[in-house]
Amino acid sequence: MVTSPVVNTYPLSSYTFGTKEPKLEKDTSVADRLARMKVNYMKEGMRTSVEAILLVQEHNHPHILLLQIGNTFCKLPGGRLKPGENEIEGLKRKLTSKLGANSPALQPDWQIGECVATWWRPNFETVMYPYCPPHITKAKECKKLFIVHLSEREYFAVPKNLKLLAVPLFELYDNVQRYGPVISTIPQQLSRFQFNMITT
Amino acid sequence: MVTSPVVNTYPLSSYTFGTKEPKLEKDTSVADRLARMKVNYMKEGMRTSVEAILLVQEHNHPHILLLQIGNTFCKLPGGRLKPGENEIEGLKRKLTSKLGANSPALQPDWQIGECVATWWRPNFETVMYPYCPPHITKAKECKKLFIVHLSEREYFAVPKNLKLLAVPLFELYDNVQRYGPVISTIPQQLSRFQFNMITT
Repeated sequence: MVTSPVVNTYPLSSYTFGTKEPKLEKDTSVADRLARMKVNYMKEGMRTSVEAILLVQEHNHPHILLLQIGNTFCKLPGGRLKPGENEIEGLKRKLTSKLGANSPALQPDWQIGECVATWWRPNFETVMYPYCPPHITKAKECKKLFIVHLSEREYFAVPKNLKLLAVPLFELYDNVQRYGPVISTIPQQLSRFQFNMITT
Repeated sequence: MVTSPVVNTYPLSSYTFGTKEPKLEKDTSVADRLARMKVNYMKEGMRTSVEAILLVQEHNHPHILLLQIGNTFCKLPGGRLKPGENEIEGLKRKLTSKLGANSPALQPDWQIGECVATWWRPNFETVMYPYCPPHITKAKECKKLFIVHLSEREYFAVPKNLKLLAVPLFELYDNVQRYGPVISTIPQQLSRFQFNMITT
Protein backbone atom coordinates (compact mmCIF):
# COMPACT_ATOMS: atom_id res chain seq x y z
CA MET A 1 0.00 0.00 0.00
CA VAL A 2 1.04 3.60 -0.49
CA THR A 3 2.13 5.19 2.77
CA SER A 4 0.51 8.52 3.58
CA PRO A 5 2.56 11.33 5.10
CA VAL A 6 1.90 11.51 8.84
CA VAL A 7 0.93 14.55 10.92
CA ASN A 8 1.16 14.16 14.68
CA THR A 9 -1.63 16.05 16.43
CA TYR A 10 -1.67 16.73 20.17
CA PRO A 11 -4.65 17.71 22.33
CA LEU A 12 -5.57 21.40 22.39
CA SER A 13 -5.21 21.17 26.20
CA SER A 14 -1.48 20.50 25.88
CA TYR A 15 -0.91 24.05 24.55
CA THR A 16 -0.79 27.23 26.61
CA PHE A 17 -2.28 30.50 25.41
CA GLY A 18 -1.42 33.98 26.63
CA THR A 19 -1.99 37.45 25.23
CA LYS A 20 0.19 40.22 23.87
CA GLU A 21 -0.16 43.72 22.41
CA PRO A 22 -2.77 44.10 19.63
CA LYS A 23 -1.78 43.51 15.97
CA LEU A 24 -3.93 45.99 14.15
CA GLU A 25 -4.95 45.37 10.56
CA LYS A 26 -3.13 47.65 8.13
CA ASP A 27 -6.34 48.46 6.27
CA THR A 28 -9.74 49.47 7.54
CA SER A 29 -11.67 48.36 4.45
CA VAL A 30 -11.43 45.93 1.57
CA ALA A 31 -11.11 48.86 -0.85
CA ASP A 32 -8.14 50.22 1.14
CA ARG A 33 -6.53 46.79 1.14
CA LEU A 34 -6.86 46.37 -2.63
CA ALA A 35 -5.55 49.91 -3.20
CA ARG A 36 -2.50 49.18 -1.01
CA MET A 37 -1.93 45.93 -2.95
CA LYS A 38 -1.87 47.91 -6.18
CA VAL A 39 0.66 50.42 -4.83
CA ASN A 40 2.89 47.60 -3.56
CA TYR A 41 2.59 45.74 -6.89
CA MET A 42 3.87 48.81 -8.75
CA LYS A 43 6.87 48.96 -6.43
CA GLU A 44 7.67 45.28 -5.86
CA GLY A 45 5.82 43.15 -8.42
CA MET A 46 3.71 40.10 -7.55
CA ARG A 47 2.81 39.81 -3.89
CA THR A 48 3.82 36.48 -2.37
CA SER A 49 2.22 35.40 0.85
CA VAL A 50 2.42 32.37 3.10
CA GLU A 51 -0.04 31.01 5.63
CA ALA A 52 0.16 28.28 8.26
CA ILE A 53 -2.10 25.36 9.04
CA LEU A 54 -1.55 24.59 12.73
CA LEU A 55 -3.24 21.34 13.76
CA VAL A 56 -4.40 20.14 17.15
CA GLN A 57 -6.88 17.42 18.09
CA GLU A 58 -9.97 17.25 20.26
CA HIS A 59 -12.26 14.21 20.62
CA ASN A 60 -10.00 12.34 18.18
CA HIS A 61 -10.71 14.75 15.30
CA PRO A 62 -8.25 17.26 13.77
CA HIS A 63 -8.83 20.95 14.48
CA ILE A 64 -7.16 23.96 12.82
CA LEU A 65 -6.09 27.09 14.70
CA LEU A 66 -7.67 30.20 13.17
CA LEU A 67 -7.33 33.84 14.18
CA GLN A 68 -10.69 35.55 14.51
CA ILE A 69 -10.95 39.31 13.94
CA GLY A 70 -14.15 40.86 15.31
CA ASN A 71 -17.07 38.47 15.47
CA THR A 72 -17.05 36.81 12.09
CA PHE A 73 -13.89 37.04 9.98
CA CYS A 74 -11.36 34.21 10.40
CA LYS A 75 -7.89 33.90 8.90
CA LEU A 76 -4.89 31.63 8.98
CA PRO A 77 -1.77 33.01 10.67
CA GLY A 78 0.74 34.23 8.09
CA GLY A 79 1.25 37.18 5.80
CA ARG A 80 3.17 38.82 3.04
CA LEU A 81 6.80 37.98 2.30
CA LYS A 82 9.37 40.71 1.86
CA PRO A 83 10.67 40.92 -1.73
CA GLY A 84 13.05 37.97 -2.24
CA GLU A 85 12.41 36.51 1.22
CA ASN A 86 12.59 32.72 1.60
CA GLU A 87 9.12 31.16 2.07
CA ILE A 88 10.05 29.06 5.10
CA GLU A 89 11.94 31.85 6.86
CA GLY A 90 9.19 34.33 6.02
CA LEU A 91 6.48 32.07 7.42
CA LYS A 92 8.49 31.58 10.63
CA ARG A 93 8.85 35.37 10.94
CA LYS A 94 5.11 35.86 10.42
CA LEU A 95 4.18 33.12 12.90
CA THR A 96 6.44 34.66 15.54
CA SER A 97 4.92 38.07 14.87
CA LYS A 98 1.35 36.73 15.08
CA LEU A 99 1.61 34.04 17.76
CA GLY A 100 5.09 34.07 19.29
CA ALA A 101 5.78 35.25 22.83
CA ASN A 102 7.73 38.47 23.29
CA SER A 103 10.38 36.55 25.22
CA PRO A 104 12.79 34.71 22.87
CA ALA A 105 13.04 31.81 25.37
CA LEU A 106 9.31 31.07 24.89
CA GLN A 107 9.37 31.18 21.06
CA PRO A 108 8.12 27.99 19.43
CA ASP A 109 10.61 26.29 17.14
CA TRP A 110 8.34 26.45 14.08
CA GLN A 111 8.63 23.28 11.98
CA ILE A 112 7.32 24.24 8.55
CA GLY A 113 6.13 21.17 6.68
CA GLU A 114 4.35 20.34 3.43
CA CYS A 115 2.87 22.89 1.06
CA VAL A 116 -0.79 21.86 0.70
CA ALA A 117 -2.21 24.53 -1.62
CA THR A 118 -1.36 27.51 -3.79
CA TRP A 119 -3.87 30.25 -4.57
CA TRP A 120 -3.59 32.95 -7.24
CA ARG A 121 -5.07 36.43 -7.37
CA PRO A 122 -5.37 37.38 -11.06
CA ASN A 123 -6.58 40.97 -10.51
CA PHE A 124 -6.69 43.58 -7.76
CA GLU A 125 -9.90 42.00 -6.53
CA THR A 126 -10.84 39.75 -3.63
CA VAL A 127 -11.34 36.60 -5.73
CA MET A 128 -8.55 34.01 -5.83
CA TYR A 129 -8.24 30.69 -7.71
CA PRO A 130 -6.29 27.47 -7.05
CA TYR A 131 -4.62 27.89 -10.47
CA CYS A 132 -3.47 30.84 -12.51
CA PRO A 133 -6.31 31.45 -15.00
CA PRO A 134 -5.11 30.79 -18.56
CA HIS A 135 -5.57 34.33 -19.90
CA ILE A 136 -3.62 35.92 -17.02
CA THR A 137 0.02 36.58 -17.78
CA LYS A 138 0.87 38.50 -14.61
CA ALA A 139 -0.85 37.36 -11.42
CA LYS A 140 -1.06 39.97 -8.66
CA GLU A 141 -0.56 37.57 -5.77
CA CYS A 142 0.51 33.99 -5.13
CA LYS A 143 -0.39 32.59 -1.70
CA LYS A 144 0.91 29.27 -0.36
CA LEU A 145 -0.46 27.27 2.56
CA PHE A 146 1.90 25.12 4.63
CA ILE A 147 1.33 22.58 7.35
CA VAL A 148 3.25 23.51 10.50
CA HIS A 149 4.18 20.54 12.66
CA LEU A 150 3.63 21.55 16.29
CA SER A 151 5.54 20.03 19.18
CA GLU A 152 3.71 18.40 22.06
CA ARG A 153 3.85 21.59 24.16
CA GLU A 154 3.92 25.20 22.96
CA TYR A 155 3.13 28.63 24.31
CA PHE A 156 1.18 30.93 21.99
CA ALA A 157 0.79 34.67 22.64
CA VAL A 158 -2.38 35.89 20.95
CA PRO A 159 -2.67 39.61 20.08
CA LYS A 160 -5.33 41.21 22.33
CA ASN A 161 -7.55 42.27 19.42
CA LEU A 162 -7.75 38.72 18.05
CA LYS A 163 -9.14 35.40 19.24
CA LEU A 164 -7.46 32.07 18.50
CA LEU A 165 -10.02 29.37 17.72
CA ALA A 166 -9.58 25.61 17.25
CA VAL A 167 -12.04 24.75 14.49
CA PRO A 168 -12.78 21.10 13.63
CA LEU A 169 -12.40 19.93 10.03
CA PHE A 170 -16.09 18.94 9.95
CA GLU A 171 -17.02 22.58 10.70
CA LEU A 172 -14.81 23.92 7.87
CA TYR A 173 -15.90 21.37 5.26
CA ASP A 174 -18.47 22.63 2.76
CA ASN A 175 -18.78 25.91 4.69
CA VAL A 176 -17.63 28.50 2.16
CA GLN A 177 -20.22 30.98 3.46
CA ARG A 178 -18.55 31.18 6.88
CA TYR A 179 -14.86 30.54 6.08
CA GLY A 180 -14.40 31.52 2.44
CA PRO A 181 -13.03 29.41 -0.45
CA VAL A 182 -9.46 29.07 0.85
CA ILE A 183 -10.12 27.87 4.41
CA SER A 184 -13.27 25.83 3.66
CA THR A 185 -11.38 23.45 1.34
CA ILE A 186 -8.48 22.76 3.72
CA PRO A 187 -10.15 19.45 4.77
CA GLN A 188 -9.84 18.18 1.18
CA GLN A 189 -6.20 19.30 0.98
CA LEU A 190 -5.40 17.53 4.26
CA SER A 191 -7.27 14.34 3.36
CA ARG A 192 -4.17 12.67 1.90
CA PHE A 193 -2.42 12.85 5.29
CA GLN A 194 -2.66 10.32 8.05
CA PHE A 195 -3.35 12.00 11.39
CA ASN A 196 -1.58 10.42 14.30
CA MET A 197 -3.78 11.62 17.18
CA ILE A 198 -1.72 11.57 20.33
CA THR A 199 -3.84 11.62 23.44
CA THR A 200 -1.34 11.91 26.29
CA MET B 1 12.25 28.46 -1.85
CA VAL B 2 10.30 25.24 -1.43
CA THR B 3 10.24 23.20 -4.62
CA SER B 4 6.83 22.00 -5.75
CA PRO B 5 6.39 18.51 -7.17
CA VAL B 6 6.22 18.66 -10.97
CA VAL B 7 3.62 17.15 -13.28
CA ASN B 8 4.45 17.08 -16.98
CA THR B 9 1.37 17.68 -19.09
CA TYR B 10 1.25 17.07 -22.85
CA PRO B 11 -1.26 18.41 -25.37
CA LEU B 12 -4.53 16.52 -25.71
CA SER B 13 -3.72 16.24 -29.41
CA SER B 14 -0.70 14.05 -28.68
CA TYR B 15 -3.00 11.24 -27.47
CA THR B 16 -4.97 8.85 -29.63
CA PHE B 17 -8.47 7.70 -28.76
CA GLY B 18 -10.24 4.61 -30.02
CA THR B 19 -13.25 2.66 -28.87
CA LYS B 20 -13.89 -0.77 -27.42
CA GLU B 21 -16.82 -2.88 -26.15
CA PRO B 22 -19.18 -1.14 -23.70
CA LYS B 23 -18.48 -1.27 -19.95
CA LEU B 24 -21.93 -1.37 -18.48
CA GLU B 25 -22.59 -0.03 -15.00
CA LYS B 26 -23.21 -2.82 -12.49
CA ASP B 27 -26.21 -0.98 -11.03
CA THR B 28 -29.15 0.67 -12.71
CA SER B 29 -30.05 2.96 -9.79
CA VAL B 30 -28.43 4.64 -6.79
CA ALA B 31 -30.58 2.48 -4.49
CA ASP B 32 -29.28 -0.69 -6.20
CA ARG B 33 -25.73 0.55 -5.87
CA LEU B 34 -26.06 1.24 -2.14
CA ALA B 35 -27.75 -2.12 -1.61
CA ARG B 36 -24.88 -3.91 -3.41
CA MET B 37 -22.39 -1.97 -1.26
CA LYS B 38 -24.12 -3.24 1.85
CA VAL B 39 -24.02 -6.87 0.67
CA ASN B 40 -20.34 -6.57 -0.23
CA TYR B 41 -19.57 -4.90 3.13
CA MET B 42 -21.09 -7.86 4.99
CA LYS B 43 -18.87 -10.22 3.01
CA GLU B 44 -15.62 -8.26 2.69
CA GLY B 45 -15.66 -5.33 5.14
CA MET B 46 -14.83 -1.75 4.18
CA ARG B 47 -14.83 -1.08 0.45
CA THR B 48 -11.59 0.44 -0.79
CA SER B 49 -11.57 2.19 -4.12
CA VAL B 50 -9.00 4.05 -6.18
CA GLU B 51 -9.44 6.65 -8.91
CA ALA B 52 -7.07 8.27 -11.36
CA ILE B 53 -6.44 11.88 -12.25
CA LEU B 54 -5.12 11.86 -15.83
CA LEU B 55 -3.83 15.27 -16.88
CA VAL B 56 -3.40 16.79 -20.31
CA GLN B 57 -3.04 20.41 -21.39
CA GLU B 58 -4.82 22.64 -23.86
CA HIS B 59 -4.19 26.38 -24.32
CA ASN B 60 -1.55 26.18 -21.58
CA HIS B 61 -4.09 25.16 -18.92
CA PRO B 62 -4.35 21.72 -17.22
CA HIS B 63 -7.33 19.53 -18.16
CA ILE B 64 -8.52 16.32 -16.48
CA LEU B 65 -9.81 13.29 -18.38
CA LEU B 66 -13.30 12.33 -17.18
CA LEU B 67 -15.56 9.50 -18.30
CA GLN B 68 -19.06 10.70 -19.08
CA ILE B 69 -22.01 8.32 -18.73
CA GLY B 70 -25.15 9.45 -20.50
CA ASN B 71 -25.46 13.21 -20.87
CA THR B 72 -24.62 14.52 -17.42
CA PHE B 73 -22.83 12.20 -15.00
CA CYS B 74 -19.03 12.32 -15.02
CA LYS B 75 -16.59 10.10 -13.14
CA LEU B 76 -12.87 9.53 -12.79
CA PRO B 77 -11.53 6.26 -14.20
CA GLY B 78 -10.94 3.74 -11.41
CA GLY B 79 -12.97 1.44 -9.22
CA ARG B 80 -13.11 -0.97 -6.34
CA LEU B 81 -10.10 -2.96 -5.18
CA LYS B 82 -10.34 -6.68 -4.57
CA PRO B 83 -9.97 -7.59 -0.88
CA GLY B 84 -6.29 -7.21 0.03
CA GLU B 85 -5.30 -5.90 -3.40
CA ASN B 86 -2.44 -3.41 -3.59
CA GLU B 87 -3.65 0.12 -4.37
CA ILE B 88 -1.17 0.78 -7.17
CA GLU B 89 -1.68 -2.59 -8.86
CA GLY B 90 -5.43 -2.30 -8.43
CA LEU B 91 -5.52 1.14 -10.01
CA LYS B 92 -3.43 -0.11 -12.96
CA ARG B 93 -5.86 -3.02 -13.39
CA LYS B 94 -8.85 -0.65 -13.31
CA LEU B 95 -7.25 1.80 -15.76
CA THR B 96 -6.52 -0.99 -18.20
CA SER B 97 -10.09 -2.26 -17.86
CA LYS B 98 -11.55 1.23 -18.41
CA LEU B 99 -9.14 2.79 -20.89
CA GLY B 100 -6.61 0.20 -22.04
CA ALA B 101 -6.60 -1.26 -25.52
CA ASN B 102 -7.52 -4.91 -25.94
CA SER B 103 -4.11 -5.55 -27.49
CA PRO B 104 -1.41 -5.91 -24.81
CA ALA B 105 1.11 -4.16 -27.10
CA LEU B 106 -0.96 -0.96 -27.01
CA GLN B 107 -1.42 -0.90 -23.20
CA PRO B 108 -0.17 2.29 -21.57
CA ASP B 109 2.52 1.79 -18.94
CA TRP B 110 0.50 3.44 -16.15
CA GLN B 111 2.74 5.52 -13.89
CA ILE B 112 0.78 5.93 -10.68
CA GLY B 113 1.96 9.01 -8.80
CA GLU B 114 0.97 11.01 -5.74
CA CYS B 115 -2.14 10.40 -3.67
CA VAL B 116 -3.95 13.76 -3.65
CA ALA B 117 -7.09 13.05 -1.64
CA THR B 118 -8.88 10.46 0.48
CA TRP B 119 -12.67 10.38 0.84
CA TRP B 120 -14.70 8.44 3.41
CA ARG B 121 -18.23 7.08 3.21
CA PRO B 122 -19.51 6.80 6.80
CA ASN B 123 -22.85 5.14 5.95
CA PHE B 124 -24.50 3.28 3.09
CA GLU B 125 -25.45 6.63 1.60
CA THR B 126 -24.16 8.74 -1.28
CA VAL B 127 -22.47 11.40 0.89
CA MET B 128 -18.71 11.18 1.42
CA TYR B 129 -16.33 13.36 3.48
CA PRO B 130 -12.61 14.17 3.17
CA TYR B 131 -12.13 12.85 6.74
CA CYS B 132 -13.68 10.06 8.75
CA PRO B 133 -16.33 11.80 10.88
CA PRO B 134 -15.44 11.57 14.58
CA HIS B 135 -18.45 9.51 15.69
CA ILE B 136 -17.92 6.86 12.97
CA THR B 137 -15.97 3.82 14.12
CA LYS B 138 -16.41 1.75 10.95
CA ALA B 139 -16.42 3.61 7.65
CA LYS B 140 -18.15 1.81 4.77
CA GLU B 141 -15.76 2.98 2.05
CA CYS B 142 -12.39 4.68 1.70
CA LYS B 143 -11.63 6.13 -1.74
CA LYS B 144 -8.20 7.45 -2.78
CA LEU B 145 -7.40 9.69 -5.73
CA PHE B 146 -4.00 9.39 -7.42
CA ILE B 147 -2.28 11.43 -10.07
CA VAL B 148 -1.28 9.27 -13.03
CA HIS B 149 1.73 10.58 -14.94
CA LEU B 150 1.02 10.09 -18.64
CA SER B 151 3.73 9.65 -21.24
CA GLU B 152 3.96 11.96 -24.21
CA ARG B 153 2.00 9.54 -26.43
CA GLU B 154 -0.68 7.04 -25.41
CA TYR B 155 -3.53 5.17 -27.00
CA PHE B 156 -6.76 5.07 -25.01
CA ALA B 157 -9.64 2.73 -25.86
CA VAL B 158 -12.89 4.23 -24.60
CA PRO B 159 -15.85 1.88 -23.93
CA LYS B 160 -18.55 2.59 -26.51
CA ASN B 161 -21.17 3.56 -23.94
CA LEU B 162 -18.91 6.24 -22.44
CA LYS B 163 -17.38 9.48 -23.61
CA LEU B 164 -13.92 10.63 -22.55
CA LEU B 165 -13.83 14.39 -21.92
CA ALA B 166 -10.88 16.69 -21.23
CA VAL B 167 -12.26 19.19 -18.72
CA PRO B 168 -10.25 22.30 -17.77
CA LEU B 169 -9.53 23.01 -14.10
CA PHE B 170 -11.37 26.33 -14.38
CA GLU B 171 -14.53 24.44 -15.37
CA LEU B 172 -14.30 22.06 -12.40
CA TYR B 173 -13.49 24.73 -9.81
CA ASP B 174 -16.43 25.82 -7.65
CA ASN B 175 -18.78 23.66 -9.77
CA VAL B 176 -20.13 21.16 -7.25
CA GLN B 177 -23.55 21.23 -8.94
CA ARG B 178 -22.15 19.76 -12.12
CA TYR B 179 -19.26 17.58 -10.94
CA GLY B 180 -20.05 16.73 -7.30
CA PRO B 181 -17.92 17.35 -4.20
CA VAL B 182 -15.06 14.96 -5.10
CA ILE B 183 -14.27 16.10 -8.64
CA SER B 184 -15.05 19.81 -8.14
CA THR B 185 -12.30 20.22 -5.52
CA ILE B 186 -9.56 18.52 -7.53
CA PRO B 187 -8.22 21.96 -8.61
CA GLN B 188 -7.47 22.80 -4.94
CA GLN B 189 -5.79 19.41 -4.41
CA LEU B 190 -3.61 19.92 -7.49
CA SER B 191 -2.71 23.53 -6.66
CA ARG B 192 0.45 22.52 -4.79
CA PHE B 193 1.89 20.99 -7.99
CA GLN B 194 3.83 22.79 -10.62
CA PHE B 195 2.53 21.98 -14.10
CA ASN B 196 5.19 21.67 -16.71
CA MET B 197 3.15 22.28 -19.87
CA ILE B 198 4.93 20.70 -22.78
CA THR B 199 3.78 22.03 -26.11
CA THR B 200 5.63 19.89 -28.64
